[in-house]
Amino acid sequence: MNANAATQSRPATCNGVDVDALFGTIQAIKQDPAIAEFRFRATNRWLGGDSNLTTVTGFYGARQEQVHARPFEMECGEPPVLLGRDAGANPVEFLLNALIGCLTTTMVFHAAARNIAIEAVDSELEGDIDLRGFLGISRDVRKGYREVRVKMRVKSKGSPAVLRELAQYSPVFDVVSRALPVNVEVETT
Amino acid sequence: MNANAATQSRPATCNGVDVDALFGTIQAIKQDPAIAEFRFRATNRWLGGDSNLTTVTGFYGARQEQVHARPFEMECGEPPVLLGRDAGANPVEFLLNALIGCLTTTMVFHAAARNIAIEAVDSELEGDIDLRGFLGISRDVRKGYREVRVKMRVKSKGSPAVLRELAQYSPVFDVVSRALPVNVEVETT
Repeated sequence: MNANAATQSRPATCNGVDVDALFGTIQAIKQDPAIAEFRFRATNRWLGGDSNLTTVTGFYGARQEQVHARPFEMECGEPPVLLGRDAGANPVEFLLNALIGCLTTTMVFHAAARNIAIEAVDSELEGDIDLRGFLGISRDVRKGYREVRVKMRVKSKGSPAVLRELAQYSPVFDVVSRALPVNVEVETT
Repeated sequence: MNANAATQSRPATCNGVDVDALFGTIQAIKQDPAIAEFRFRATNRWLGGDSNLTTVTGFYGARQEQVHARPFEMECGEPPVLLGRDAGANPVEFLLNALIGCLTTTMVFHAAARNIAIEAVDSELEGDIDLRGFLGISRDVRKGYREVRVKMRVKSKGSPAVLRELAQYSPVFDVVSRALPVNVEVETT
């Protein structure tokens, strides 16, 4: 985000994001890059069979320990066809959530910094896995997703190409797209 | 998993996993690899600012559409230091959940197939991100995690080296470890 684009005339908030605070953060980081060093953490406990529970309580960032408003719990399960009791989304579905959640937040924040108003974002995504990799049936088959496709429908006057470019600052997109093809389509209405 | 290792004397369940069903699945896939083709899906709606909601209702696998027992919802947020209202774990924390949930389930299932009893698994993990990448302050800084470290404490008579190897059949580990160094330590008690 280019803080030089900031002017006194920009709105204080855009897309529900405090733009003044955002540019303030960017300026602070430029003066002290250590502020940008974050360490996210989680703990997990196996609950038996296909079920396990992750808890997130805090992280390190902006030069100090940070505590979330409340602990966040995430329960992983597996559906019956994968021999589970379906008590929660499975880990590869949680990966899709991480990806689309990150693309959405990233698009919204970067658009706010450029004063591009967004009224709505609705997305769908899907990923293909051949479970012969996971099961160890074939060494030639990769264990994880081989491809993920994302469609984002954005209610905005912004250009689809620009919005797509902004979304791809996403940290989770960075991770997943280094590992496999992630096709992101952005359509505006 | 090696179905040839199956014997009539193996227990019907191990680690809460139906081992007969597991070997049945493996045999079925060997005869018809199309059974192993899965397509996982999610939808997401932006809720304003830092908040968005993913819903997972079903997927395709084992040659048919599959519906979860109930829809699973996952709400992403951001903490105040990242300009959010902290209504949910943030996407990079959800990525840690996907990773440790998948490593845990994978270890437990593969151990069950080898009749390695596991009594407990407790894990912690952390990942390092320099937010200058996400913010577009520096092109030389990667946007996502640069490293993730995982510690799994397993109550089992299995060998830590074998349990670690089994965990690494994990589909989410496959994705993340193709993108960045993921150091997995397994300790048994």
